[in-house]
Amino acid sequence: MLPVRICSNASRHVGCKVAPLTRRALPIASKYPFQKPTSCDQPKRSLSTSTTPPTHPEVIFSGIQPTGVPHLGNYLGALKQWVDLQNLAPPSTELLYCVVDLHAITQPQDPNDLRRRRQDTMAMLLAVGLKTERCVIFEQSRVAAHSQLMWVLSTLAPTNLLARQTQWKSKLAESEDRSPLDPDGSSKLKLGLFSYPVLQAADILLYGTTLVPVGEDQVQHLELARSLAGKFNRTFGKILVVPKVKLAPAKRVMSLTNPTSKMSKSGAVNSQINLDHSESEIRLRIRGALTDSIPGISYDREARPGVSNLVEMIGNMTNRDDFEVIARECEGLGMKEFKDRVADSVVEGLKGIKEEYERIKGDAGYLEEISRIGAEKANRKANETLGKVMEAMGMGVNPAPSSS
Amino acid sequence: MLPVRICSNASRHVGCKVAPLTRRALPIASKYPFQKPTSCDQPKRSLSTSTTPPTHPEVIFSGIQPTGVPHLGNYLGALKQWVDLQNLAPPSTELLYCVVDLHAITQPQDPNDLRRRRQDTMAMLLAVGLKTERCVIFEQSRVAAHSQLMWVLSTLAPTNLLARQTQWKSKLAESEDRSPLDPDGSSKLKLGLFSYPVLQAADILLYGTTLVPVGEDQVQHLELARSLAGKFNRTFGKILVVPKVKLAPAKRVMSLTNPTSKMSKSGAVNSQINLDHSESEIRLRIRGALTDSIPGISYDREARPGVSNLVEMIGNMTNRDDFEVIARECEGLGMKEFKDRVADSVVEGLKGIKEEYERIKGDAGYLEEISRIGAEKANRKANETLGKVMEAMGMGVNPAPSSS
Repeated sequence: MLPVRICSNASRHVGCKVAPLTRRALPIASKYPFQKPTSCDQPKRSLSTSTTPPTHPEVIFSGIQPTGVPHLGNYLGALKQWVDLQNLAPPSTELLYCVVDLHAITQPQDPNDLRRRRQDTMAMLLAVGLKTERCVIFEQSRVAAHSQLMWVLSTLAPTNLLARQTQWKSKLAESEDRSPLDPDGSSKLKLGLFSYPVLQAADILLYGTTLVPVGEDQVQHLELARSLAGKFNRTFGKILVVPKVKLAPAKRVMSLTNPTSKMSKSGAVNSQINLDHSESEIRLRIRGALTDSIPGISYDREARPGVSNLVEMIGNMTNRDDFEVIARECEGLGMKEFKDRVADSVVEGLKGIKEEYERIKGDAGYLEEISRIGAEKANRKANETLGKVMEAMGMGVNPAPSSS
Repeated sequence: MLPVRICSNASRHVGCKVAPLTRRALPIASKYPFQKPTSCDQPKRSLSTSTTPPTHPEVIFSGIQPTGVPHLGNYLGALKQWVDLQNLAPPSTELLYCVVDLHAITQPQDPNDLRRRRQDTMAMLLAVGLKTERCVIFEQSRVAAHSQLMWVLSTLAPTNLLARQTQWKSKLAESEDRSPLDPDGSSKLKLGLFSYPVLQAADILLYGTTLVPVGEDQVQHLELARSLAGKFNRTFGKILVVPKVKLAPAKRVMSLTNPTSKMSKSGAVNSQINLDHSESEIRLRIRGALTDSIPGISYDREARPGVSNLVEMIGNMTNRDDFEVIARECEGLGMKEFKDRVADSVVEGLKGIKEEYERIKGDAGYLEEISRIGAEKANRKANETLGKVMEAMGMGVNPAPSSS
């Protein structure tokens, strides 16, 4: 068996914000489409970056790696945004949320651990409030078409474009050999690390996705998907939808004990808040957060990283990004009172998630059923696209899938 | 649409002998297992290279590219050997013959042409005498598990091993840039050309294949499949069968008009004999074959390539490899009589194939049914292996396939 490793590559997947990656909050205009303010304190935001309404219903695809119980950074970076989309997007917008376990295995995984984390991730998607009536929630490994379209796209994807992906180049730079793909190279980087952007392209293109919410680090991968879709359409006829990039809002959550680093599963125990923490545990950890001895509360990322992180936490948990206003609202508070207010926001924002998670996570039969139903819906849609792709190429198609 | 191109990469596929590749006849000991002499003129051959009988039933997998109507070289290099295996292998031996259309698309294909050639190839497999009751005859694109296991194996396959595959290196050498996989490279070689040996490994490993008949040029690819199976088993438990290499007999058929080159679809019209040629057309082409003006018939590849090619043709059509003996049997014949004898062997050997092919090839409904039934059998077996693989890795499995 392989050693147990917490996957630190969550952020590699398009739309996967298990670890928040962008360095600064993005301008309002680049926020998720359809994301509406829920607080009257909040400045008015546009519902879409486009001034003309879309003529076709939107299809939004996003993926999360099965890393198990998410921490607050994972929640704010992805899951909360998914729930907001569910609650705010027009009913015509299709939402597909995928546990991208095929991507997880590009890193060594302990099988028992991966099995448990897949199940925990499904449980958490439900616990945070995603509804199977509204969204297609499914596991990638249960939809064969992802791998099938990936192969088809492999025959169109130039190796030099893949070799230029920033994330591959950084893997190369870390490896013992700088040119492992050369016949004389000696490195042992796996093919999956080189080719996974093509799998990502398949993930997106299978569902007629129109919008992919991504962090800035994923824009290059999405451009590859767009380029492959365009190339396919020019060669075989217009079958694939060329998705648009939507820069997702950066929800940066820093470590409680080292606020110049991101909150991370690999950080110190007290540095993170996990979604299955009890109220008292959340309050304890926020109370222990590293701040500074400057009197009063103010917002300054450089000079006061700890305090600013907590200010942002209030904002992110209450759908506000006017962090300086929040800081001014708190400026008269003592550090203990301020931290209590932070803890209130977090506890209120996560209310019920832990209980729901605990209730669901042990029910393997229920989760299996949810996963099966999601896979059936996803398979139906994916096989429709794949069928058209194969037909257009002169290839055979899968036998008809089993009826649901 | 892409320009119509006859795929010249048939030989890339493991076991695919659409174009004969090896340079010399292999020693008898490395012939197909189970291949028995059918003529009493023939020297005794061993039925297996192993001296101890196998304890488990053998599973033999072989693939052919959908290049349409085969020529005599394709027939002797692959199809005839498949039929011989069908007729001579013990009933416990499983035989899987696959039209590897997923491999075909690593080269640009015109969709209508590929669709027709897939159908023609299926028709020809039946016309040469393969029986669906005895063999699983199927199209690769209809079995999703090939692409699925390919992705799984991609996460185990070191890029440097792929970069060392001779066939990749020769593609590289032909390309405008010698290091297209380097981030600074400018070549546009497609990912599929780099990664297809991993798909080959999946093709083989999905069916518990014990023996893969390959030409010498494919030994390196099969070693990769063996290495990936071993690596998987060491990491996740013994699930995959590690296949043995069986060097297939080299059946070399040269061009009729240029007997120092292989018979090829891209050669001159009169240079080849196709399996759908009429008897008179076969006789006409053999009569027009380039020979020499040396009196009498003798066997000498170097000095008499045209005559020697015709001598080998007699041998290969009558299951003999004692080419010098054949030449001596013919030494008193004039060139016209000799060519008539060659034509007799070929006509006799191909007897009924053309008629059967013409009968079947237009019947799209029947061929579709044959393909569907083959795909169902192949899917059942492939999904069984894939299910074990995914389970062992801690991944999800496909929904149950539709009942047959």
